[in-house]
Amino acid sequence: MTYCVAMRLNAGLVFLSDSRTNAGVDHINTFRKMAVFEQAGERVLTLLTAGNLSISQSVVTMLRERIADSEGENLFNVPNLFEAARHIGSVLREVYERDADALHEFSIDFNASMILGGQIAGEEQRLFHIYAAGNFIEASDDTPYFQIGESKYGKPIVDRVTRREMTLEQAAKCALVSMDSTIRSNLSVGLPLDLLIYERDSFRVRQHCSITQDNVYFSQIRAQWSQRLRQAFSELPDPDWSTF
Amino acid sequence: MTYCVAMRLNAGLVFLSDSRTNAGVDHINTFRKMAVFEQAGERVLTLLTAGNLSISQSVVTMLRERIADSEGENLFNVPNLFEAARHIGSVLREVYERDADALHEFSIDFNASMILGGQIAGEEQRLFHIYAAGNFIEASDDTPYFQIGESKYGKPIVDRVTRREMTLEQAAKCALVSMDSTIRSNLSVGLPLDLLIYERDSFRVRQHCSITQDNVYFSQIRAQWSQRLRQAFSELPDPDWSTF
Repeated sequence: MTYCVAMRLNAGLVFLSDSRTNAGVDHINTFRKMAVFEQAGERVLTLLTAGNLSISQSVVTMLRERIADSEGENLFNVPNLFEAARHIGSVLREVYERDADALHEFSIDFNASMILGGQIAGEEQRLFHIYAAGNFIEASDDTPYFQIGESKYGKPIVDRVTRREMTLEQAAKCALVSMDSTIRSNLSVGLPLDLLIYERDSFRVRQHCSITQDNVYFSQIRAQWSQRLRQAFSELPDPDWSTF
Repeated sequence: MTYCVAMRLNAGLVFLSDSRTNAGVDHINTFRKMAVFEQAGERVLTLLTAGNLSISQSVVTMLRERIADSEGENLFNVPNLFEAARHIGSVLREVYERDADALHEFSIDFNASMILGGQIAGEEQRLFHIYAAGNFIEASDDTPYFQIGESKYGKPIVDRVTRREMTLEQAAKCALVSMDSTIRSNLSVGLPLDLLIYERDSFRVRQHCSITQDNVYFSQIRAQWSQRLRQAFSELPDPDWSTF
């Protein structure tokens, strides 16, 4: 399983992904689910992937091959983010053509889900959710974030807290708290995490770090969040049955 | 969809269920998912149901018929909670025998999940999770609660807060906060709620109430919980990238 979340804020974009993959509980590995395509000063695209690892690895490899190939459409020459999402969707459909029947023979769904976000010089920063069929939707002002994978445990806090006016630091904190709730509840989501911060109109990655068990800040907010949640809960009034 | 949660505490048992059922988003109804079987002074059994409504209604109706019938095994004459869970499992298997093939013809899974809790004079209070196959597990001291239905949104707070030493009021508050997170995230979980409180060794229902939109306490903790969560979040330190 996987948990990835990305937010589009006035100040920029925040991406967070875990790195655990599993085929059953006895076959657990660490694979990064964040791919970054950067031409500093011109464009930054970040892709988060969930679903079947062979599918998402194929897609990312093919996207990189197209860039290396330099002929034809690729993520470094598409004119805008919409075309980038369309390009990724069409690569996903190529993988579908190649693999879906064989997977189906083994009763394996063609399971893939991606988040693409970034900015290309000449337009605003944008955020897309790409589905297995290669179709996609774009984040709006009303819904400034997307989640993929095991998204339910971590959704309540993102729902309650995410505002476009947040600073990038607040958004990173929110993503990490949401990840913490998910990791606590689902064994198949795990460290290390990949965190990427993009500052609007900068056209370069501001921060891209791997968060391991040794990360002091993540350990600190995990402990403090637990403690403060319990405190907030204990401060809520108990029910007075006479009023029911 | 459905969300039900039940907790077994030193002080007693707490049960909470929503009442929304849906067949698609355009066919939404209100049906209670809590059935109570009480012989005051002798036994109290509470059954929460999730899954296909026709299956759970059949089971509850048959359980009541067996009691009315008074001959043969029923929930009012089984000697203990384990036998009650086994009895419900066997009724569920009867419904499976009758309906599963026909449902399968229409590509409908035999989807049913239940929580049974209560106390019968002569033994301790107990809590069981009964599966569609009629098999079941019992809550332990390590895991003093069960959830069925749309359980993920509301799990983090239950996980963090539930302790066997809680008062019944605290546990009811925890169940309601957990339900609030679920209702906010899933349209197919909705009011009114059924809340039942059983005090250990009392052998009678202490509190059984329906919580509608007009319930002052529920409205109050929904608003306060949102506010306190945001406050707790804002008090967490922001990341200092120089330490990453």
